[in-house]
Amino acid sequence: MIEISPIGVVSSPLTDAATAPKQGDEGAPDAWLEFDPAVAAGLADLAPGQDVLLLTWFDRAARDVLAVRPRGAADRPLTGVFSTRSPDRPNPIGLHRVTVLEISGPRIKVNDLEALDGTPILDVKPVLGGVAER
Amino acid sequence: MIEISPIGVVSSPLTDAATAPKQGDEGAPDAWLEFDPAVAAGLADLAPGQDVLLLTWFDRAARDVLAVRPRGAADRPLTGVFSTRSPDRPNPIGLHRVTVLEISGPRIKVNDLEALDGTPILDVKPVLGGVAER
Repeated sequence: MIEISPIGVVSSPLTDAATAPKQGDEGAPDAWLEFDPAVAAGLADLAPGQDVLLLTWFDRAARDVLAVRPRGAADRPLTGVFSTRSPDRPNPIGLHRVTVLEISGPRIKVNDLEALDGTPILDVKPVLGGVAER
Repeated sequence: MIEISPIGVVSSPLTDAATAPKQGDEGAPDAWLEFDPAVAAGLADLAPGQDVLLLTWFDRAARDVLAVRPRGAADRPLTGVFSTRSPDRPNPIGLHRVTVLEISGPRIKVNDLEALDGTPILDVKPVLGGVAER
């Protein structure tokens, strides 16, 4: 068993999974990432304009689901969850590519985030460029 | 506190972090992903040739690190971990884009994986195409 402590929480106008966009680029709103001040040193080199990968924990997901109909569409076949982005899966980690819009201490505003208000944040990673840029 | 049960483990010739490639596309070997048979139904729609995102847990990472010199290079400035892909970070989740080479029951062979032998597997996700393909 692995134990994870969230490093922050999503603050968003989205509160209802049923009506939230299924992906960030499908009309999701801006959101604030409220980081634990204890990890602020890790945020020091982020800047507005950067694209980052945000990892979250879908705390309202069902973890006993192994097959779903993609996008909840009744006319699509049952599909193994590891071939879908369904939040319902054994370890419901969300992966979101977002752009940093604004930074205010340990709070970071990003665009196009479909995660619900209160979603725990696990990690932030840079988007990898080509080998020569690393 | 969030509790995660790994869904499998990496079987790889790589055993030493000091000499392992830093990213998959820097000469990392093929590896087998050995999934727990209990999640096999979730793997049903994966097929050779597909690119997937593999999420792992860097179980040998240091979790109290908030700044590193990228790629361990002494001549690079200390950088906040959330702007790096360092395995040393508060929640050391690895994110790897790999291609499925072969499937044998709950074992899946992939290419270019820099994770060490024995690394726990947390999740597998499809690479998202354009909105029209979802």
